[in-house]
Amino acid sequence: MYDRLKGFRDFYPEEMAARREIIDTVEEACRRYGFRETASPHLERAEMWTDKSGEDIVEELYAFEDKGDRHVTLTPELTPTVARMVAAKQQELSKPIKWFSTRPFWRYEQVQQGRFREFYQTNIDIFGTDDPRADAEVIALGAQLLVDLGLDADDFEFRVSHRDILGAVLRSFDADVDVREAVRAVDKSDKLDENEYYDLLVDAGLSYEQAATFDERLSATTVETLDELAAFAGTEAARDAIDNLVAVLDAVEEFGASEYCELSLETARGFDYYTGVVFECFDATGEVSRSVFGGGRYDDLIESFGGESTPAVGFAPGYATLPLLLERAGVAPEESLSTDYYVLQVGDTESEAASVTRELRAQGYVVETDISDRSFGAQLGYADSINAETVVIVGENDLADGNYTLRDMETGDQETVPVSEFPE
Amino acid sequence: MYDRLKGFRDFYPEEMAARREIIDTVEEACRRYGFRETASPHLERAEMWTDKSGEDIVEELYAFEDKGDRHVTLTPELTPTVARMVAAKQQELSKPIKWFSTRPFWRYEQVQQGRFREFYQTNIDIFGTDDPRADAEVIALGAQLLVDLGLDADDFEFRVSHRDILGAVLRSFDADVDVREAVRAVDKSDKLDENEYYDLLVDAGLSYEQAATFDERLSATTVETLDELAAFAGTEAARDAIDNLVAVLDAVEEFGASEYCELSLETARGFDYYTGVVFECFDATGEVSRSVFGGGRYDDLIESFGGESTPAVGFAPGYATLPLLLERAGVAPEESLSTDYYVLQVGDTESEAASVTRELRAQGYVVETDISDRSFGAQLGYADSINAETVVIVGENDLADGNYTLRDMETGDQETVPVSEFPE
Repeated sequence: MYDRLKGFRDFYPEEMAARREIIDTVEEACRRYGFRETASPHLERAEMWTDKSGEDIVEELYAFEDKGDRHVTLTPELTPTVARMVAAKQQELSKPIKWFSTRPFWRYEQVQQGRFREFYQTNIDIFGTDDPRADAEVIALGAQLLVDLGLDADDFEFRVSHRDILGAVLRSFDADVDVREAVRAVDKSDKLDENEYYDLLVDAGLSYEQAATFDERLSATTVETLDELAAFAGTEAARDAIDNLVAVLDAVEEFGASEYCELSLETARGFDYYTGVVFECFDATGEVSRSVFGGGRYDDLIESFGGESTPAVGFAPGYATLPLLLERAGVAPEESLSTDYYVLQVGDTESEAASVTRELRAQGYVVETDISDRSFGAQLGYADSINAETVVIVGENDLADGNYTLRDMETGDQETVPVSEFPE
Repeated sequence: MYDRLKGFRDFYPEEMAARREIIDTVEEACRRYGFRETASPHLERAEMWTDKSGEDIVEELYAFEDKGDRHVTLTPELTPTVARMVAAKQQELSKPIKWFSTRPFWRYEQVQQGRFREFYQTNIDIFGTDDPRADAEVIALGAQLLVDLGLDADDFEFRVSHRDILGAVLRSFDADVDVREAVRAVDKSDKLDENEYYDLLVDAGLSYEQAATFDERLSATTVETLDELAAFAGTEAARDAIDNLVAVLDAVEEFGASEYCELSLETARGFDYYTGVVFECFDATGEVSRSVFGGGRYDDLIESFGGESTPAVGFAPGYATLPLLLERAGVAPEESLSTDYYVLQVGDTESEAASVTRELRAQGYVVETDISDRSFGAQLGYADSINAETVVIVGENDLADGNYTLRDMETGDQETVPVSEFPE
């Protein structure tokens, strides 16, 4: 008996029904917002990741040599692939390009609760516009899909920040700061105590005093105090970044998603490639402690993959974490099957039962019938196991009288209907 | 600029829209027939394939050592995986188990028209019943999904055969026949001339005279002459196999799918693991020369993967070949985007346009609006490129009069509607 690989999952029908409902809801929201589905290879040249060294992701690649001696890898994320796709048809594609895609990805990570080696995400991106409304549309869609899943403003919050504000404020200090290192420290800050956090900022080039000032400036910030922060930083870059963030938040309001957002400059996102607005979705109750998903603007990435300079903004809800929030809020879809009709055969009624089954299916119902030559009781037990709403009993005696019997499986009530009147 | 791997495909939105329509139609038919969706790992232990040596498939594996020194492979087919899943929950699962799953698979093959190294299939199987109605339900579903895709009985045919009939007839000859070799010869026969075919049968142990008799017996067979064939073979095994095939064809008739089926004992399916009824779907006009898809009964396979003895029957339409038939018949879905509304902003109407957009999306429509700060003409061009049905023009002047303008993009007709009456 072979075993499944560690960190990989089988989804049996009940669990899959719940997952399918979640994925369908997310994709349906994407479609309404005018995002278009794409699909793409699950295997790519490993160089798409290894050429940009220094990322943890490279150590987690499922990479190997294929039979043609190509160095290939299972894709650990979608971004380089969509970057390749956009670059390949840069001229033909009308902008903005609004794409989504639900797929598995693979990373050789430590397996833990809610973290697997094979995981599924819907990647949602807009390419070809740096207008604040694009950032806002992405955030509004992020909120919409959670609302469509049954959540409300008390359940989740989007913490919105801007990479360039962090950078500009850091650069405004009289110090030789490694901005990338300092931003990574910010990203980790909520998992660290103050001393550890400040140590990392000092490692990045700030003095302790500057680290404390920086921390205070970020933590005290609300929309109203952004102007003070711009004045404190005193650079055009800081001013521009703050103006951009405010414009995005204004557009978020116009798209009706303000109530789900709060300004949080301490939100930084772990990836180096973000360039503008970044956001992370959190459980508002804090019970699910990790970020549910996150995203942001990454205007330099397409070019770094050999395309033309192409602004981009996106996010990627994942189906390992999202259900944790839905469960916490009590709105996770039920893990159960649903069936409209089970057509039960009693005696030599195979032909009539097949005919009823066929007609009901033609009307669009989910229908099963006996294909195992089983007893009345066994068929009724099976109908119950698949949560059949109604059992159509096709029995010899009833048929002789020109009738079927319909049994409501919830109440147990039965009624007799003439053959000529069912299915309607 | 990185290139895509050979034999792998990118699906851009237009092509994907058509594929999605096909996949949705197939899955919707599966659901109506009471099949339940599952999902499963795309990477498995390579031993699940390499332990059963001798198959071409082993040479085509994308296999490698993972970072934990496991010998793993991208899955080239679903059967061993579902066998593992069924075996793992044999007691819990209520029978019959009716599953479907749409997924990519990978084989390192020669790339040619309609054959890729990454390909997508919907695997559809019933486990846990050897009743002829199960075979028939699978065949009826196969026909149903093609009908749902817009095909009719003039477009395709299911050639139905039975492995045990071939085996029983072969064994009835006074010769030491390698049945597996002979069945493989039958599977290849339509690509060979008579001499080549007979040579293969002789290699498998028949004399030339026996080969000719065998060929004649198979080719002359209709439902009516099956009894003669049973008498010719003269064994209980042949009688049982023929009775089983007739029972399946009777049940196919009850499920209303007879018109799509014909008896064809020369249909053998290339895989060794089939044990009973097998079928292949062909283009009735012959224009698409290869089998569109095929399937059959494989009662021994689950046990061979360490499970309990579990009868099984299934098939797997693939999305490289299926579209070829749809195109030939002129019913392939259009490769184009569809959009209900584009909300066009003229002047400082961002806020009103966002509000209209939001309302239309809340009503379930597919809606886009300007997120690139573009001119009237550029917006109209974009609306055209995404096939917007209606453009809602939100202009400053109109707004001052309390109106929007609706433009029908097919006719070019425009009408003015009061803000209070739109969206309805």
